[in-house]
Amino acid sequence: MAWRERLTRFVEHQRFQQFVIAVIVANGITLAVETSRSIVASHGALLHTLDTIALTIFVVELLLKLIAYDRAFFRDPWNVFDFVIVSFALVPASGPFSVLRALRVLRVLRLISAVPAMRRVVSGLLAAMPGMGSIVALLALIVFVAGVMATKLFGEIAPEYFGSLATSLFSLFQVMTGEAWPDMAKTVMAEAPMAWIFFVVYILISSFAVLNLFIAVVVSAMEDQLRDDMRAEENEHAAALARTQAEILAELRTLQAKVDRLDEPDKV
Amino acid sequence: MAWRERLTRFVEHQRFQQFVIAVIVANGITLAVETSRSIVASHGALLHTLDTIALTIFVVELLLKLIAYDRAFFRDPWNVFDFVIVSFALVPASGPFSVLRALRVLRVLRLISAVPAMRRVVSGLLAAMPGMGSIVALLALIVFVAGVMATKLFGEIAPEYFGSLATSLFSLFQVMTGEAWPDMAKTVMAEAPMAWIFFVVYILISSFAVLNLFIAVVVSAMEDQLRDDMRAEENEHAAALARTQAEILAELRTLQAKVDRLDEPDKV
Amino acid sequence: MAWRERLTRFVEHQRFQQFVIAVIVANGITLAVETSRSIVASHGALLHTLDTIALTIFVVELLLKLIAYDRAFFRDPWNVFDFVIVSFALVPASGPFSVLRALRVLRVLRLISAVPAMRRVVSGLLAAMPGMGSIVALLALIVFVAGVMATKLFGEIAPEYFGSLATSLFSLFQVMTGEAWPDMAKTVMAEAPMAWIFFVVYILISSFAVLNLFIAVVVSAMEDQLRDDMRAEENEHAAALARTQAEILAELRTLQAKVDRLDEPDKV
Amino acid sequence: MAWRERLTRFVEHQRFQQFVIAVIVANGITLAVETSRSIVASHGALLHTLDTIALTIFVVELLLKLIAYDRAFFRDPWNVFDFVIVSFALVPASGPFSVLRALRVLRVLRLISAVPAMRRVVSGLLAAMPGMGSIVALLALIVFVAGVMATKLFGEIAPEYFGSLATSLFSLFQVMTGEAWPDMAKTVMAEAPMAWIFFVVYILISSFAVLNLFIAVVVSAMEDQLRDDMRAEENEHAAALARTQAEILAELRTLQAKVDRLDEPDKV
Repeated sequence: MAWRERLTRFVEHQRFQQFVIAVIVANGITLAVETSRSIVASHGALLHTLDTIALTIFVVELLLKLIAYDRAFFRDPWNVFDFVIVSFALVPASGPFSVLRALRVLRVLRLISAVPAMRRVVSGLLAAMPGMGSIVALLALIVFVAGVMATKLFGEIAPEYFGSLATSLFSLFQVMTGEAWPDMAKTVMAEAPMAWIFFVVYILISSFAVLNLFIAVVVSAMEDQLRDDMRAEENEHAAALARTQAEILAELRTLQAKVDRLDEPDKV
Repeated sequence: MAWRERLTRFVEHQRFQQFVIAVIVANGITLAVETSRSIVASHGALLHTLDTIALTIFVVELLLKLIAYDRAFFRDPWNVFDFVIVSFALVPASGPFSVLRALRVLRVLRLISAVPAMRRVVSGLLAAMPGMGSIVALLALIVFVAGVMATKLFGEIAPEYFGSLATSLFSLFQVMTGEAWPDMAKTVMAEAPMAWIFFVVYILISSFAVLNLFIAVVVSAMEDQLRDDMRAEENEHAAALARTQAEILAELRTLQAKVDRLDEPDKV
Repeated sequence: MAWRERLTRFVEHQRFQQFVIAVIVANGITLAVETSRSIVASHGALLHTLDTIALTIFVVELLLKLIAYDRAFFRDPWNVFDFVIVSFALVPASGPFSVLRALRVLRVLRLISAVPAMRRVVSGLLAAMPGMGSIVALLALIVFVAGVMATKLFGEIAPEYFGSLATSLFSLFQVMTGEAWPDMAKTVMAEAPMAWIFFVVYILISSFAVLNLFIAVVVSAMEDQLRDDMRAEENEHAAALARTQAEILAELRTLQAKVDRLDEPDKV
Repeated sequence: MAWRERLTRFVEHQRFQQFVIAVIVANGITLAVETSRSIVASHGALLHTLDTIALTIFVVELLLKLIAYDRAFFRDPWNVFDFVIVSFALVPASGPFSVLRALRVLRVLRLISAVPAMRRVVSGLLAAMPGMGSIVALLALIVFVAGVMATKLFGEIAPEYFGSLATSLFSLFQVMTGEAWPDMAKTVMAEAPMAWIFFVVYILISSFAVLNLFIAVVVSAMEDQLRDDMRAEENEHAAALARTQAEILAELRTLQAKVDRLDEPDKV
């Protein structure tokens, strides 16, 4: 049992973590350099070796953690995150999986799990997500309904934008990012002059929903941060007032007791 | 009377509502599949049958609710929403009404009224609307005035953008979504070099109005959500302090009474 | 003196104000119709007559108000607004002033001063302006400096965007609205490959300044609206607690007096 | 020692500062005029002389301040700002440094350090920066990873957008400003039809991160401004309540003492 504790202390040691961060950064640089075809042509073998070394270090690191924490390893979602990202690199990236080679750069995202400050930021972002659920579902529903309608109405007029449901959904996503819709509208309105109604209604409704998505996130962020601060202060005020009230009550009770004693000897 | 209560209990039963939600989702899928011309060619009859079944279920569902709630049915705006949407599908969709065929997909929006979580979100969105009334009216006024001015000033220079009032209003809506205005400005300024004044002033004023529309919504959402939370807490603090105050007063009055009794026997 | 009071009562009468609003709306409609060249060709004389009638009513209305309020008339900024707008229509709109014909539609903006709800909204917008002063000045300074730099650096490379200081300022305003900058960057970078630094820095700084302008407005709107509400409630709580405290103090003083009386007869 | 105090009083005198502001504005105007090639051709010598005079005044001003404050000069970051900006103008702007000539206009930014209101605004902006650190780092990481992936995946398909890592990063920055991405997507998807996944995921993640950057700034601005106001008021309420409580306690103790005296003579 002693060796497991010592192993845990080793993988949690600041030096070890700083070493892993350094390897991630170094690997990020080699991956960046690898995008240059001329450097790959001249120093390809070196880059490949460096990449393999980095990957080996990551695998060893994860194995050590797996041994140290045993089953508890997978309880920390950040460990799962590291595990999945490193696994990508071990899948043979050839044939239909050649896209996976490009996914190797996701390894650099391990910086997020390795640096505590970034971990906190991402945890904060994820914490804001549940409150967004219903509005995101509503937005998806709006885009879906608009997509089916656009395909039916404009599919034959402008097949490059609305030819199939998939194309329509992609076009409507572009409209939602505020891009390229004047071109779409011009193409469609050349044959269906009333089509502006569709675009104006869709833009107004989807912007309004996005705005509310935005507000939901802002308000929830406020609730968590601003309120905590103010609550602390209010609690302090309220506590000070309550303390003095308690003092007043105590004094009153002493007084009560004295008056009682004052009363009794008289009767006696 | 007993059968009406039993009918009400039936249409409000969770199972019945889950069944309706399932039919809405299934109908949404058939409507999505229907956008593919090749599938319609091969399985058109099946899709049509499925659509008719779904529609029949919706009609029966609404009839049951109509019978169960009687006049109270139309008091719930969500019922009116369902009623209008299902009615669309019953209008003969041929000739000039062929657009209505595309509106059948609006039926999928019934998901909003069927799922309580989405109902709440939409209710929330609609609750934010009254506070926006005046600013939306102001924005409409600004766009109208700018539209008339642009038609008069640039109608002959750039008829593709400002040829008629309708075209101008549509172009100015595009400018407001932050799209394509450099092209318009270039076309117009080729002949009227001072036209940049119009565009800059219009963009500044309309952005400022939109910004304030946005702020109105955010502030009202804050007022409703953030304040409620803080109010609850403050009320709690205030209530705790008030409770102790009441206790102090009660003690004081007891003391008062005792001192009074102390006073009287002396005099007697 | 009596006739002036009666005149004031007349121009402030709800019926009179509703009549003026109706005339503004009607005039807005005739101005909108006037943008159609075919209708002007067939009914031009009628439209001109209606416009003259509306203008006459506005002039009479303002004269009545001028007489009724005398010098106080110009103390209300909304009256000044009405006065300036109606004056535009009386300037002979010919020759170099032909642009003023298009400005006649500004008369429709009198709706803002005539409808109390819109008046409040615009007052609210204007109240947010002072807090924006310094940031707007900073933003103007940033655009000016960037404009001079762009003209010097890229003036010969891309004269269509940065040929003169005026052109540069207009281009940089376009960049700030998030439009067309990829085209500008591409043109410039064809000859000056490092120009991306200029664009990226300018976009980051100007977005950051605009963001802060936005925050200044939001925070000030919050301060005015949200705080007022919460303050009201807090005041209420504080007042309730203070009231009970006063009661406690009063009881204590009564008690004090009683004990004093209790003390004295003993000594006597 | 006396002359240093007098010098300090001189450089801090309002008149002196107003004179410097006037020179900055005048220099800004000559720099703006200098962008016009025709005016430079006719009055180039005059402009050059004016510019040299302004620069001389700035150098003298900074020397005076350097002497007056001695080592303390560089402790004020605004002085460092002024020093760096004026130094730019003294570097010989020829050959490879010709870009520095364009940087001379940065001198106009001295307005920021010279006008107290703008100084406060910029200090406010900079104060908001530390809270943004982690999210900006996260955003940079996201853009870097997406850039490497895009170069690997689309580098050969669309070299004009994703040919090298630098080009990819610039393209992805454009996407983040909401510009031109439909064109990129169209070019790439012509050969890699699944590329929409990359764009949609990148846009969603980067928008979400930017949104949170934005919220971090808003919330921190709120915390600083809104809270201060509310805290002041709350403190006031709490202080008033606490004052009355102290009064109540004092009265109670007086009462206590009286009852004690009442008790003792009885026993005596």
